[in-house]
Amino acid sequence: MALPATNFDPPFNVTRASHLVLTSRDLAKARDFYTEVIGLKVSDETATTIHFRGVEERAHHCLTLKRTKDEPACERVGFRVFEEDDLEKAKAYFDAKGIAAKFVNVPFQGRTLHVSDDAGTPLELCARMKTQPRQHTRAHEHKGAAALRLDHMQVLVPDVASTAAFYAELGFRVSDYYCAGERIVATFLHRKGNPHDIVFMTRAGPRFHHVGFVVAEMHHVVRALDCAGNLGFGDNLEHGPGRHGHGHSYYVYLRDPDGHRVELLLPAVQIIDIDDEPVRYDLEGTNTNLWGPPPPRSWFEEASPFAGAKVREAPAGDPLTLEKYLFAKTPKAEVVKRRA
Amino acid sequence: MALPATNFDPPFNVTRASHLVLTSRDLAKARDFYTEVIGLKVSDETATTIHFRGVEERAHHCLTLKRTKDEPACERVGFRVFEEDDLEKAKAYFDAKGIAAKFVNVPFQGRTLHVSDDAGTPLELCARMKTQPRQHTRAHEHKGAAALRLDHMQVLVPDVASTAAFYAELGFRVSDYYCAGERIVATFLHRKGNPHDIVFMTRAGPRFHHVGFVVAEMHHVVRALDCAGNLGFGDNLEHGPGRHGHGHSYYVYLRDPDGHRVELLLPAVQIIDIDDEPVRYDLEGTNTNLWGPPPPRSWFEEASPFAGAKVREAPAGDPLTLEKYLFAKTPKAEVVKRRA
Amino acid sequence: MALPATNFDPPFNVTRASHLVLTSRDLAKARDFYTEVIGLKVSDETATTIHFRGVEERAHHCLTLKRTKDEPACERVGFRVFEEDDLEKAKAYFDAKGIAAKFVNVPFQGRTLHVSDDAGTPLELCARMKTQPRQHTRAHEHKGAAALRLDHMQVLVPDVASTAAFYAELGFRVSDYYCAGERIVATFLHRKGNPHDIVFMTRAGPRFHHVGFVVAEMHHVVRALDCAGNLGFGDNLEHGPGRHGHGHSYYVYLRDPDGHRVELLLPAVQIIDIDDEPVRYDLEGTNTNLWGPPPPRSWFEEASPFAGAKVREAPAGDPLTLEKYLFAKTPKAEVVKRRA
Amino acid sequence: MALPATNFDPPFNVTRASHLVLTSRDLAKARDFYTEVIGLKVSDETATTIHFRGVEERAHHCLTLKRTKDEPACERVGFRVFEEDDLEKAKAYFDAKGIAAKFVNVPFQGRTLHVSDDAGTPLELCARMKTQPRQHTRAHEHKGAAALRLDHMQVLVPDVASTAAFYAELGFRVSDYYCAGERIVATFLHRKGNPHDIVFMTRAGPRFHHVGFVVAEMHHVVRALDCAGNLGFGDNLEHGPGRHGHGHSYYVYLRDPDGHRVELLLPAVQIIDIDDEPVRYDLEGTNTNLWGPPPPRSWFEEASPFAGAKVREAPAGDPLTLEKYLFAKTPKAEVVKRRA
Repeated sequence: MALPATNFDPPFNVTRASHLVLTSRDLAKARDFYTEVIGLKVSDETATTIHFRGVEERAHHCLTLKRTKDEPACERVGFRVFEEDDLEKAKAYFDAKGIAAKFVNVPFQGRTLHVSDDAGTPLELCARMKTQPRQHTRAHEHKGAAALRLDHMQVLVPDVASTAAFYAELGFRVSDYYCAGERIVATFLHRKGNPHDIVFMTRAGPRFHHVGFVVAEMHHVVRALDCAGNLGFGDNLEHGPGRHGHGHSYYVYLRDPDGHRVELLLPAVQIIDIDDEPVRYDLEGTNTNLWGPPPPRSWFEEASPFAGAKVREAPAGDPLTLEKYLFAKTPKAEVVKRRA
Repeated sequence: MALPATNFDPPFNVTRASHLVLTSRDLAKARDFYTEVIGLKVSDETATTIHFRGVEERAHHCLTLKRTKDEPACERVGFRVFEEDDLEKAKAYFDAKGIAAKFVNVPFQGRTLHVSDDAGTPLELCARMKTQPRQHTRAHEHKGAAALRLDHMQVLVPDVASTAAFYAELGFRVSDYYCAGERIVATFLHRKGNPHDIVFMTRAGPRFHHVGFVVAEMHHVVRALDCAGNLGFGDNLEHGPGRHGHGHSYYVYLRDPDGHRVELLLPAVQIIDIDDEPVRYDLEGTNTNLWGPPPPRSWFEEASPFAGAKVREAPAGDPLTLEKYLFAKTPKAEVVKRRA
Repeated sequence: MALPATNFDPPFNVTRASHLVLTSRDLAKARDFYTEVIGLKVSDETATTIHFRGVEERAHHCLTLKRTKDEPACERVGFRVFEEDDLEKAKAYFDAKGIAAKFVNVPFQGRTLHVSDDAGTPLELCARMKTQPRQHTRAHEHKGAAALRLDHMQVLVPDVASTAAFYAELGFRVSDYYCAGERIVATFLHRKGNPHDIVFMTRAGPRFHHVGFVVAEMHHVVRALDCAGNLGFGDNLEHGPGRHGHGHSYYVYLRDPDGHRVELLLPAVQIIDIDDEPVRYDLEGTNTNLWGPPPPRSWFEEASPFAGAKVREAPAGDPLTLEKYLFAKTPKAEVVKRRA
Repeated sequence: MALPATNFDPPFNVTRASHLVLTSRDLAKARDFYTEVIGLKVSDETATTIHFRGVEERAHHCLTLKRTKDEPACERVGFRVFEEDDLEKAKAYFDAKGIAAKFVNVPFQGRTLHVSDDAGTPLELCARMKTQPRQHTRAHEHKGAAALRLDHMQVLVPDVASTAAFYAELGFRVSDYYCAGERIVATFLHRKGNPHDIVFMTRAGPRFHHVGFVVAEMHHVVRALDCAGNLGFGDNLEHGPGRHGHGHSYYVYLRDPDGHRVELLLPAVQIIDIDDEPVRYDLEGTNTNLWGPPPPRSWFEEASPFAGAKVREAPAGDPLTLEKYLFAKTPKAEVVKRRA
């Protein structure tokens, strides 16, 4: 199975993963979680919608929460294109490919192109957002993790090679990929010069796995967890803190009150040069973290649905879960410990 | 079950938990672990014995590792008394109580009193050690966690109230204690003005549960884990990082290559005043951490034997283990997640 | 000039430096500084008095600010004795020495003994304070440096050897001392097992130089400075961050809105053992910091008066100030730099 | 004076500031500084040349030190272009402009284009370098600041508007600029999506002011300074730690043993979107830092020469130096402090 080749002369200029839209059954509770634990700022709120941004972001929002009475879902994964003109080029490109794409107007971001990738993930592209001054130096107003900005999103899809090819054609580069034998089971794709704007892992999908926010230092993660523990969100910690084996960064995963998954990560490595070739990692049922146990089963199995997307099944995987890891951890050979 | 009253006019002046003696089947591997991950300095080493100290410590050693071909064990838990004269007073006290105590000569610490507590934990008391300059500012020579100093030790005993009474008579104060119903199941005892020099938990014993070393900041814990992961000790991480609910500090627990358990903790709270009364915590089968899941079963069940100590059984407890916690973690009520 | 010998069988049991009383011309502004930058909690406030405590402290207050229309001053430096009975012993001791000492009643701390040391520093001793739960784990409510607790105070006196002798007789131990030639020019004295409860430096006095609060990690110092910069207290940063050459800890010095000096420091080294002998440092007009330039002239010259204390002159010193350091810093010998 | 407009369809694709060449009179001493304090890794060394890279970098070198017996100088400021083909386009562009540009072969980076900007700054462009695995997770081998990567360089030029225009034509965007009245006195220019690949300040030039390396967290800066203090480089600390008022990041400036200036900074803000307009800062002789005093006179006046570049004078500025700041810092109005 071949890694898709990046089109270095893409039809339009996507610059970065920039925002997403989630639905929530309890906006007030979700607001608490995102402001007090994750530390996002509220840019705008009404009775039915809240727009959040990271403390560093000039852009109006990186997360839009909409009230729902239905099952919480991810409505859209959003990318920025560089200029308005790129939206026209994108529309023309998708039209030529026979991929349905339509312009809509979205509050605070204006003309926006709605389209889906080959897995059915609902996307949106926009060139501009309302801006306001960055707040990252206003430490006296920071809360929780004081998350700086949205960094990437991870989506579960049944065929990562095919989906990665869709993005590679749009100029995305692969920084890392995971193989199970010769099968590619995960791809990390980026436009902005770090390891990931969007990550795909093989599983029934499309389903929304997580959004990653960058925090400045590890102590911001610790503060977020202290706040979570104090504010009734202690059990929302699903996995971590730990360090990924591929070395992008340190991580922790939390579940928001609606079950959507959020990663807090430290600033990841820079990847810009032409000779920064994709790095392959082979999964062999072992713990791939540099340290920290593998994720629990929930991390592998649970994800948010995409509104209106039809889920296709995926080939069965057999990841090493925390549950298996604990079960397999045999007593140290060096010493037979007495069990009480 | 009553908490023992501290004797504020103790028969001799114990100042702090200061050192311990462990045995190891592979000194070279253990040396790597303690110098490269925990970051202790080697004060002296021979083919059969290594003495370590924390980077801040002027005292010659806080940990003595002795080579063994038998099951690794803890030989002694060591305390400092303030002056030589306190050793005499201690001997007289134990003699009067009919508790066997004898003087021995121990390298680098001179005249040392060997005695056991009421649970059978082998102790030793000394007043002096060879000194050398502190190394805590020599950052260019620090490794791993750059552990500053030994802080406390935890011992499993079948009757914590009885054992705590032995120490309370020697002037130890209780900072915190855990109850299961009205039964006291854990006591934190101190002399040096923080929450713990020695901690007892109810379980078959006496058995050695862990030694706690203080590190300066959380990033030292992270560096220790990075080093552990790089040097083949990644799976030695047993529990954490997390934060205890009683708020002493942040923690992580590792197992050394012989299975002995080591805690790295941040500097704990100061407890000095007369009106700093013991704080009670009630265990109710819930996760008592501020954040972080409960410890795995191994943390509750596995411990190092004390050389020559006879283990007595304890009343059965039913702690919430990580395994139970994972099993019980029901899907979020707010959203029914599709499972792949 | 000889270092005073510690009386290890002191007439009463002082346990630690615990609190101080300062006066302020603008309570509202001072409140902002201590809560938003230093991060203390308000325990009680009226129109004329505010009591503060560190986030870790169970004791009701470590700092009392009283409104004044006069020159801001330090009214008292406070110590804890262990038990009520120690207050009686202290009174008897001072009476026997012919040192004026009288009992007063102080809100939230009850019976309190007022006395002055041999330099005229107004002191007070108490055994108890009202308590309340520690707040150190309530990170969501922390501000600024989230200072944990009062650690020590520094006082300028004309004859440090004489004043140190006063405290040594009360059981204080010297951790470190500075010499200029054979003259002792600074002494660090402690009771609680770290380098300092009270520090004396040679200069006209008695005058109050600074109070030191412990913060948990360096990032708390950084956050405090970010908050200071945002809230109009940026120029209150007088010196640091840097690291003292004696290695106690990292430091930063700020001036409160009334000009009183506050140090934020990281947890200092532990000093408990009998063989932890005083360490001598020789000042030779060089920068004694491990890193960071020497303090500015203001740090050496400016201090708060003690209410009612008569200042005596001191032998002239000639410290290396930041101003001199900058002046003396000659262009690097390795390269002749062109000056614009 | 107008800010130059960015050419968003540049003649060739410069991707980032990537490397520089400095000369040194004492390679061994400089090697110590860069490996033990800054924490760079040595990629290659001979008797006359050392190549260094940051611990995160896959590229072979970000700093080349060459032995000299002359005055230490900066030989070249290096940028990456994306592809080999961009080098051809660059050559054609400069030829068409009548700007001398020639290809040379440079070890470990192959075909390289030498050219100078309009101020006479010697530049070089290359598309590829030898690669090797990133070392950023190998914490057990990290030293000093463990600098991750080169971030930017700052150059003094007599006419920043003119020089900025040269780069704007090549696609560089202005993130921030400083004005003194209506005169632009500093411009921050970038290609890679953060505030700066190259910064220009008004002063006689071209002269090399500093190279900035990114470190992961503030404690890496602290460790670097601890190492500097221990290894005889304590006085090499010129300015900081502090936080710039424009909020890019925290900083510290050190001088290497040859007098070349190095900044350590935390990861800066992300700047990618079209609507992230340049931000103007007006200098008015005040301290522009969020906290920390202004830089000393040496920071404003001293810089390394560029090998072979002719220096032109600049209009006189009157920056607020640390020396002036200290002189002007009047005693607090709130309280008249007694001076000893």
